[in-house]
Amino acid sequence: MSTATDNPIRNGVDTATLFATLDAVKGNNEIAKFQFRASNKWISGTHSKSTIHGFYGAMQEMQHVGVHVFDADHPAVLVGADNGPTPVEYVLHALAACLTAGIGNIAAARGVNLTSVESTVEGDIDLLGIFGLGNGEVRNGYQGIKVSFKLEGDDPEKLRTVVEQSTARSAVYDIVTNGVPVTIDVEAG
Amino acid sequence: MSTATDNPIRNGVDTATLFATLDAVKGNNEIAKFQFRASNKWISGTHSKSTIHGFYGAMQEMQHVGVHVFDADHPAVLVGADNGPTPVEYVLHALAACLTAGIGNIAAARGVNLTSVESTVEGDIDLLGIFGLGNGEVRNGYQGIKVSFKLEGDDPEKLRTVVEQSTARSAVYDIVTNGVPVTIDVEAG
Repeated sequence: MSTATDNPIRNGVDTATLFATLDAVKGNNEIAKFQFRASNKWISGTHSKSTIHGFYGAMQEMQHVGVHVFDADHPAVLVGADNGPTPVEYVLHALAACLTAGIGNIAAARGVNLTSVESTVEGDIDLLGIFGLGNGEVRNGYQGIKVSFKLEGDDPEKLRTVVEQSTARSAVYDIVTNGVPVTIDVEAG
Repeated sequence: MSTATDNPIRNGVDTATLFATLDAVKGNNEIAKFQFRASNKWISGTHSKSTIHGFYGAMQEMQHVGVHVFDADHPAVLVGADNGPTPVEYVLHALAACLTAGIGNIAAARGVNLTSVESTVEGDIDLLGIFGLGNGEVRNGYQGIKVSFKLEGDDPEKLRTVVEQSTARSAVYDIVTNGVPVTIDVEAG
């Protein structure tokens, strides 16, 4: 895309680099094939730690600048030691963060200025499912998720269309609403 | 469930409390209705921070012991400042952590001892989707996710059936494989 912008940095997004990246991907679709990864180690009970560092993309092995380690656990009320958020809470964070990153990028690409983007995400879950007490009628996961955005910046109508476009292009929104095939291999011994 | 166990603490799981919790939920299904939450604030570009603290469950407002704050961003190759993992990587962490918590609990409930549980999760994604360059044929989210577990402990066959049962009862596995209805509200101005 060779859209001209009067301000190459908008909302903290380097739009010149953004458009150059899109041009590069158009020229060679292989650049767009990524593999993201996490490794996890069980500590005790419901407590585990994941590490996120390396990934594949742009036709090469790459690494984040930092090595990121995250604890997950159940709270005491769910018979854990509360060493971190629950796994299902991380899903809510991922959804908010993905939609928000898209809002930043899309607003910049459209020349829309943002001054504030805040959101809350609520996921309702009936734990009869995971407890195996739902008689097969209660799912294990969230029954529904509600995201509430509050944006400030340019024209409110433009801000709304930016959120719509971010939703239409969000990886995590697609994963969470449409599902993904998952395979599980086990080596035991 | 009033299953007797010879060792009430196994794999770091207090099985007596686990079974008492299941009994309590059987007696009053309202206890199982939870709402988890995250709030997110955009920082700049594709960088945002989520906070996870309060939740509703067991018929009351509750809080994690700690206030958990997580950065998410895009790496430089995706025109971000790499202030944290990408949102899609947090999804992989959530999936591994949920399956692993279930393995810890289910093994304990079945009297199966674990000595080590490690996993790697790989998610393949073609970014032509989120870039809007896929001609409507490339999805935004992962095309597939592969989880590879390596377990050590009691009889390998028992360990395998524990992973199967954890998968059958995992909230994040259900969310990621089957999808969840998501509503998005926007307040702009």
